[in-house]
Amino acid sequence: MSDKNTFVLTITCPDTVGIVAAVSGFLTQHDCFITEAAQYGDPLSRRFFCRIVFAAGALTPTRTEFEKMFAIVAERFQMIWTLHDLTKKPRVVILVSKFGHCLVDLLHRYHTGQLNIEIPAVISNHPEMRSIVEWHGIPYHYFAVDKHDKAGQEARVMEVIDRVGADLTVLARYMQILSSDMCTRLQGRAINIHHSFLPSFKGAKPYHQAHTRGVKIIGATAHYVTPDLDEGPIIEQSVERVDHTHTPDDLVGIGRDIENLVLGRAVRWHVEHRVLLNGSKTVVFK
Amino acid sequence: MSDKNTFVLTITCPDTVGIVAAVSGFLTQHDCFITEAAQYGDPLSRRFFCRIVFAAGALTPTRTEFEKMFAIVAERFQMIWTLHDLTKKPRVVILVSKFGHCLVDLLHRYHTGQLNIEIPAVISNHPEMRSIVEWHGIPYHYFAVDKHDKAGQEARVMEVIDRVGADLTVLARYMQILSSDMCTRLQGRAINIHHSFLPSFKGAKPYHQAHTRGVKIIGATAHYVTPDLDEGPIIEQSVERVDHTHTPDDLVGIGRDIENLVLGRAVRWHVEHRVLLNGSKTVVFK
Amino acid sequence: MSDKNTFVLTITCPDTVGIVAAVSGFLTQHDCFITEAAQYGDPLSRRFFCRIVFAAGALTPTRTEFEKMFAIVAERFQMIWTLHDLTKKPRVVILVSKFGHCLVDLLHRYHTGQLNIEIPAVISNHPEMRSIVEWHGIPYHYFAVDKHDKAGQEARVMEVIDRVGADLTVLARYMQILSSDMCTRLQGRAINIHHSFLPSFKGAKPYHQAHTRGVKIIGATAHYVTPDLDEGPIIEQSVERVDHTHTPDDLVGIGRDIENLVLGRAVRWHVEHRVLLNGSKTVVFK
Amino acid sequence: MSDKNTFVLTITCPDTVGIVAAVSGFLTQHDCFITEAAQYGDPLSRRFFCRIVFAAGALTPTRTEFEKMFAIVAERFQMIWTLHDLTKKPRVVILVSKFGHCLVDLLHRYHTGQLNIEIPAVISNHPEMRSIVEWHGIPYHYFAVDKHDKAGQEARVMEVIDRVGADLTVLARYMQILSSDMCTRLQGRAINIHHSFLPSFKGAKPYHQAHTRGVKIIGATAHYVTPDLDEGPIIEQSVERVDHTHTPDDLVGIGRDIENLVLGRAVRWHVEHRVLLNGSKTVVFK
Repeated sequence: MSDKNTFVLTITCPDTVGIVAAVSGFLTQHDCFITEAAQYGDPLSRRFFCRIVFAAGALTPTRTEFEKMFAIVAERFQMIWTLHDLTKKPRVVILVSKFGHCLVDLLHRYHTGQLNIEIPAVISNHPEMRSIVEWHGIPYHYFAVDKHDKAGQEARVMEVIDRVGADLTVLARYMQILSSDMCTRLQGRAINIHHSFLPSFKGAKPYHQAHTRGVKIIGATAHYVTPDLDEGPIIEQSVERVDHTHTPDDLVGIGRDIENLVLGRAVRWHVEHRVLLNGSKTVVFK
Repeated sequence: MSDKNTFVLTITCPDTVGIVAAVSGFLTQHDCFITEAAQYGDPLSRRFFCRIVFAAGALTPTRTEFEKMFAIVAERFQMIWTLHDLTKKPRVVILVSKFGHCLVDLLHRYHTGQLNIEIPAVISNHPEMRSIVEWHGIPYHYFAVDKHDKAGQEARVMEVIDRVGADLTVLARYMQILSSDMCTRLQGRAINIHHSFLPSFKGAKPYHQAHTRGVKIIGATAHYVTPDLDEGPIIEQSVERVDHTHTPDDLVGIGRDIENLVLGRAVRWHVEHRVLLNGSKTVVFK
Repeated sequence: MSDKNTFVLTITCPDTVGIVAAVSGFLTQHDCFITEAAQYGDPLSRRFFCRIVFAAGALTPTRTEFEKMFAIVAERFQMIWTLHDLTKKPRVVILVSKFGHCLVDLLHRYHTGQLNIEIPAVISNHPEMRSIVEWHGIPYHYFAVDKHDKAGQEARVMEVIDRVGADLTVLARYMQILSSDMCTRLQGRAINIHHSFLPSFKGAKPYHQAHTRGVKIIGATAHYVTPDLDEGPIIEQSVERVDHTHTPDDLVGIGRDIENLVLGRAVRWHVEHRVLLNGSKTVVFK
Repeated sequence: MSDKNTFVLTITCPDTVGIVAAVSGFLTQHDCFITEAAQYGDPLSRRFFCRIVFAAGALTPTRTEFEKMFAIVAERFQMIWTLHDLTKKPRVVILVSKFGHCLVDLLHRYHTGQLNIEIPAVISNHPEMRSIVEWHGIPYHYFAVDKHDKAGQEARVMEVIDRVGADLTVLARYMQILSSDMCTRLQGRAINIHHSFLPSFKGAKPYHQAHTRGVKIIGATAHYVTPDLDEGPIIEQSVERVDHTHTPDDLVGIGRDIENLVLGRAVRWHVEHRVLLNGSKTVVFK
């Protein structure tokens, strides 16, 4: 572990006495300086979650050594743990259909360094967004959906995701329902933006549903993809006030801004390893 | 119509050319000075809604005369209309169970003049809130619910509502499901506070449902009572951000403040005649 | 006034009896169908403001005729009024420096039709944003600031604004202080985004000021440009919650999203003629 | 330290390697189970802050023993630290003038157990709120302000605060400016609610100032009292959207609800020992 590099350690395990003492003792002992730490013990599931950011010191061992030794601590507490080197940029693949606002927003955050990621590929079932994507120097993969061979199109999408080594796949208003198999394969590393305040208005045309019900606030939800449509663990939500004068089209317009914000935050938190899964829910260390 | 008195005129009718010209012409002609006006034409239902506040002038006729003459204008445009004298305080009956926060909040708004209303009665199926209500000099009617005679208890509640001449009945966390008959009788003049961001989490224990689903924002909804539980026209909603650290009890606590705000606004808007029904939705002229 | 075209009429005048009757009567008489109307009487300044959207009918006269006849009504009530044909897109010039987020956001809203405008020019004192602007097919004017000839650079900027016939000039994080003369010439048709919740933190580096003061909420403000720096009439503001963990750089990042939203709304409301000036304040008919 | 009791330990010290390891090691060693922990290292001031909630176990020593031993750890890291037994309710004295909404709100939160405190006294320079305070069974001290002897009135107020052993003094819209001496004596244990979004609109009549400036959002700020008026460390702020139709009186009404929320949160966080001072700012572990 090269000196001065910064790492994120995430841990999930049954809650018990001595976890923090053991982990912080281990880090201190190996010359690691904790710069951020957050923890949470769920009183219902009796599980413990933590995220620790630390800088390696002059006496910190190599990563292989470190992992071998930490595995002993981890086993004692039945930890599920990950260690990430923050100098390595996560590789994020973006899927999009015709509505490009979330894609454009992510590209701008990437372009200005707000999102510290690589984008090795953008994939779409429509050709419309090619030009802006290629302007950013990113390969654009256009795979049209053939009604009679949806599986074939999905296979081509998965092939790119696998080939470029995506750490995260973002469904930025990708208007295709993924197969159960693809959801399972991407579980925990695919984020979808749903254009409603879930669990309200699941499924299609949520802004029209919201208009029909006459709600006074609309929202958007970023969640992990699971085989159950719109039921995955929620990462972030945000809302905006509306009123009777807004048409469904107005709601779509207002919603765009909310979707951008919510998806931008969810992606950033994920790639900064701030989101831990707690059953069907998330623990987010902002 | 005594000189200087202020009135609110509300109108709903099919949208067409000349409504505003006819109404404002009528008012000008009868020496009425418009101090507030708001209107809305729904492009889907093709209906027109407006609310006009005006001060009667020296040459304004008596109310009976005024109404007789305005009825001619109204008939031409097939108007549903109401005329309210703002110097007459609406009579509001409050129903409550054990959770007193919404009641206490409404009483304080009433006490300080924020809500310009009379409260001729508070009715409860529990005795707990008697003391604070009577401190405000308001009669407290305690009707326990007999499992084998729910209809009898409801009849006693309705008897009070009718006897005191309630213009509005507020269900301030009244934890009894009203009969379809009572809902129908109070339609358009009973407001309920539901402790979730409808249409999410209908029915019982919404904060626990929200906790289980892991939402990042919770809310409350004030709506008109209809025979369809939690499906009535929404008047107002508000939300607050929560996170994984909040227990169901925390959500209940945070929710209380939202419920107070939302119900307080909905009651004020209703008694100021700012809320017009548009099918299963509302037009709110804030 | 060609049949079916839609117009916006805005009016400001001393408040008195009969304005609405006169205007709506005039429109009805000339076969105009009001689709939106909003009005406000300021009880302090005793001034009346309104905005009426109407569709011309088969019997509506030519625009010249219409204006000649309406001028008679307008004179009677001492009206300041404007009439805009909604089929003509407002011409918006954008000024930018190095921070491109607001520019990129406006370009995307323009590109997707959310902002129904023309952008005949983007002007900057830096070359950085040329590529993305020209990708949108918009001329980019780069005028470097010469410390010893600020007036010369400003003259070149004004020359473009005048030549392309800008209806509105937007300072999208343009980090130059305009001369008093330029402010005066653009008064009422130039919008600035200030990256704080005014009147807090005027002047330079507001996010750093906010960090030093330890505020728990930051914001952004869109306002009309006036010779008094950061004192112009406020059009829109929005805020976001922050906490002790946020560094000044974090605030800059969070602030970007707020600035985009606030400026996007202010520009839209302005070009839809929803913003009327009321002394040093605005009336915004959303 | 009786078994099963819950304690809060707060620590502030220079940031360095090994603090968390030392503290968590100490607690584990003395059979304490950490149920909540939050920490923050300020990269600018290089100071470390943490708050740990723990349950004493069967083998935990007496409080005196515990403190004696912990002092050794504390000295090593130059810690400023406090230890609170959560079973002991903090004693909160409330000061109020004529506007009673914040007082009534705090009393209701106290009454329903949302605020786990004792209120040994309410003090006022006006008699108006006596009745509701005494209804809650709390002594009401009315000390009128004599223009020629402000110091005498303040001395009587301080005498009550001292005599009842107040842990916290809350200025719930107490419209008297405290002397510099009193501010200094109460530093860190007195909270004021200012009815604006500080640092905007310091001083008197902030809602009128906000109306004059034409802001689109108003707010309230809870802060620790310091000799510099309205300049103390901010604990919490919240805001609400307003528009041109709101009169100064409307802003006062809307503001009341914000003040209640903000003050209610600040008091709760303070008595739960969630607020640590960081120079002129606060660290709030929500």
